[in-house]
Amino acid sequence: MPDVLPHIVILGGGFGGLTATQALARTPARITLVDRHNHHLFQPLLYQVATAGLSAPSIAAPLRQILRHQRNVTVLMDEVTGIDLAPRRVQLTRERLDYDWLIVATGAAHAYFGHDDWAGNAPGLKSLDDALAIRRRVLTAFERAEQEDDPARRQAWLNFVVVGGGATGVELAGTLAEIARHTLAGEFRRAQPSTANILLVEAGPRVLAAFDPALSAKAQRQLEQLGVQVQLGQAVTAVDDAGVTLGGQRIAARTVLWAAGVAASPLGRMLDAPLDRAGRVSVQDDLSLPGHPEVLVLGDLASVQQDGRPVPGVAPAAKQMGQHAGKLVAARLHGDTRAMPFRYRDTGALATIGRMAAVAQFGKLRLSGVLAWWVWLGAHIWFLIGFRNRLVVMLDWAVAYWTQARHARIITGQDKRTDRG
Amino acid sequence: MPDVLPHIVILGGGFGGLTATQALARTPARITLVDRHNHHLFQPLLYQVATAGLSAPSIAAPLRQILRHQRNVTVLMDEVTGIDLAPRRVQLTRERLDYDWLIVATGAAHAYFGHDDWAGNAPGLKSLDDALAIRRRVLTAFERAEQEDDPARRQAWLNFVVVGGGATGVELAGTLAEIARHTLAGEFRRAQPSTANILLVEAGPRVLAAFDPALSAKAQRQLEQLGVQVQLGQAVTAVDDAGVTLGGQRIAARTVLWAAGVAASPLGRMLDAPLDRAGRVSVQDDLSLPGHPEVLVLGDLASVQQDGRPVPGVAPAAKQMGQHAGKLVAARLHGDTRAMPFRYRDTGALATIGRMAAVAQFGKLRLSGVLAWWVWLGAHIWFLIGFRNRLVVMLDWAVAYWTQARHARIITGQDKRTDRG
Repeated sequence: MPDVLPHIVILGGGFGGLTATQALARTPARITLVDRHNHHLFQPLLYQVATAGLSAPSIAAPLRQILRHQRNVTVLMDEVTGIDLAPRRVQLTRERLDYDWLIVATGAAHAYFGHDDWAGNAPGLKSLDDALAIRRRVLTAFERAEQEDDPARRQAWLNFVVVGGGATGVELAGTLAEIARHTLAGEFRRAQPSTANILLVEAGPRVLAAFDPALSAKAQRQLEQLGVQVQLGQAVTAVDDAGVTLGGQRIAARTVLWAAGVAASPLGRMLDAPLDRAGRVSVQDDLSLPGHPEVLVLGDLASVQQDGRPVPGVAPAAKQMGQHAGKLVAARLHGDTRAMPFRYRDTGALATIGRMAAVAQFGKLRLSGVLAWWVWLGAHIWFLIGFRNRLVVMLDWAVAYWTQARHARIITGQDKRTDRG
Repeated sequence: MPDVLPHIVILGGGFGGLTATQALARTPARITLVDRHNHHLFQPLLYQVATAGLSAPSIAAPLRQILRHQRNVTVLMDEVTGIDLAPRRVQLTRERLDYDWLIVATGAAHAYFGHDDWAGNAPGLKSLDDALAIRRRVLTAFERAEQEDDPARRQAWLNFVVVGGGATGVELAGTLAEIARHTLAGEFRRAQPSTANILLVEAGPRVLAAFDPALSAKAQRQLEQLGVQVQLGQAVTAVDDAGVTLGGQRIAARTVLWAAGVAASPLGRMLDAPLDRAGRVSVQDDLSLPGHPEVLVLGDLASVQQDGRPVPGVAPAAKQMGQHAGKLVAARLHGDTRAMPFRYRDTGALATIGRMAAVAQFGKLRLSGVLAWWVWLGAHIWFLIGFRNRLVVMLDWAVAYWTQARHARIITGQDKRTDRG
């Protein structure tokens, strides 16, 4: 393809960036998709990798494999070190890209609200490496409990605190309870995994705040039935390698998982535009950067208001924005200059809690329990990228359902913290 | 169980240690199985994890899950720091074990023949972490090639050197050639993965020296048909991050994989017994340590001579020794003091080279090509631990066979060397 074709640079191969890339498949342009990982990640199932239910490759697919037939795309595994809006230039670690159109979709990471020193003792869950680190830590905790003679110290290895009552926190806590009560039952000789305490801490008044209050209450009841203790209205004020402090009370726990806060990708700060408190870029109603119609920001990095409410940071919203960005750029390249405001269609919300327990809301429809769980299962298998992954995930889940086993219970890599413990 | 039962300590949960543990299932004894990993590894398929064909959990199963119904076993994930033969005591990082019987089966690691400084630039393949590191390095090399403008430097990222022409080296080289020629075809826009050079270097006169010379020749031909260059009779004299030196000739290659040497586990040195050149413990004909009938050494750590030839360091030999050790200890505990020499039954040898290419010998039967490959496939699926793993591996291979895709092409973790490169 000659160099005179317009160059569209897309930063981030998540739901937003990948959808935008695919929406531009038939556009005569050179597209460069940059991601610091080589894969697209099916983030809604990341907690399953963290809790040893799925292997990492089951929820990830190489970007260049997904896009191999789209000949107008070059995929680069690299990191962005700078964005220069005036000369329309993106600096990567290894090269410089001059763009005509820029789509920024680098998402969000977990945040510790000014307590970055908690990160080492309370890992968050955003990437595959995060998930593998959490898996290692959780599985190692049970191993350490088996090796500890002192009852108080043993119990500290069997106490798990999950901070944050959103979807990720609920999923992690519910699955940890299942692992302790069912998966590991009968496998230890000295420790009793079933005596593990799983504490879910939420600073707000209810879990799953994005859902209807009635569903929040049902989710909490389902969590408690699984054996999770839910503590609401209290914020964690300290985290160290021996536990957490919560409302003045000290809780001994060697394993603390962080699911409480997200902050937008630091790339937002390179865009010379107003940011909200979470670091998201306030965009125009067509997702373009104020004063820069050639730059579109989308997904978790974009702060979009609609009907007085923020568009939520969920996968369907990112995909819709990616679709919109692709259409907008294609239209502009065809000379179409009409206004194209983005409209978010709420496709409903789903959260799983554990085996046969979930909540779902679609418009006015509210589901919970077994039925919601089947809807959750079907939706997640359906949307999982790649035929093979769907098959393997279904197989893993079918086996896990009948046997209560979790096949990915493999400790790999090293964790300095638990190695010392 | 009361503490008066004899205590059998087994070090290492590989083929030897696990088989010994299982052979003692009905013996009234307390068994403690110690491994520094939480899983038993199906080592013969490790190269598939390294080359992105299988996910790590597909070839590994938690030891305590395998042994959960064997109530006389306690599994500990820990490392051995010392063995005291006189007081019959094993020191672990976290506790001390007093034993009546000790079975040492900690295997072997790769060795650099006095060039330990090569390890950073030429990773070997013994553990899951090794396999994941090699996967990361191989996949990242192709990514770097795509980002490199300079033709010579690009080619250096597309040059792969595999050192060692044994089974592991042959498997790695054959699979690398397939990845470059088929899996990645059409996925890159600037680099041409098909121009990759895969060089297999063997210091001896032929590949697969453990096989019949006619099969070695056939294996070499099959490798060359896959696109591998085979260089025999030349030893590598230098390895650094830019390539290798081979017979005075310099070869630029950013990726060097080490499959040339093994050295027995350092635990052999704690046993106060004669070691052979590779650090293996010379044992009595019943696998016991000279002067210590209560200590048995087996698997890759044991140097066993039979009919003037060494018993090979392969999985079937380790399993047979494990079976023997279990039987011997059980007999002794029943008061049976008869001599019980170990006899190795050669069950044949198999090595795969690539898609539909393998060699096999069973007694006087020699197979190569497609037929040997089917035998290899069946044997490996059959012996893979755990029903679920077998199913998933079969599924992965069926999909890979038809699509030439490799599903585990996910780069996780960090490699300082390639990050710098």
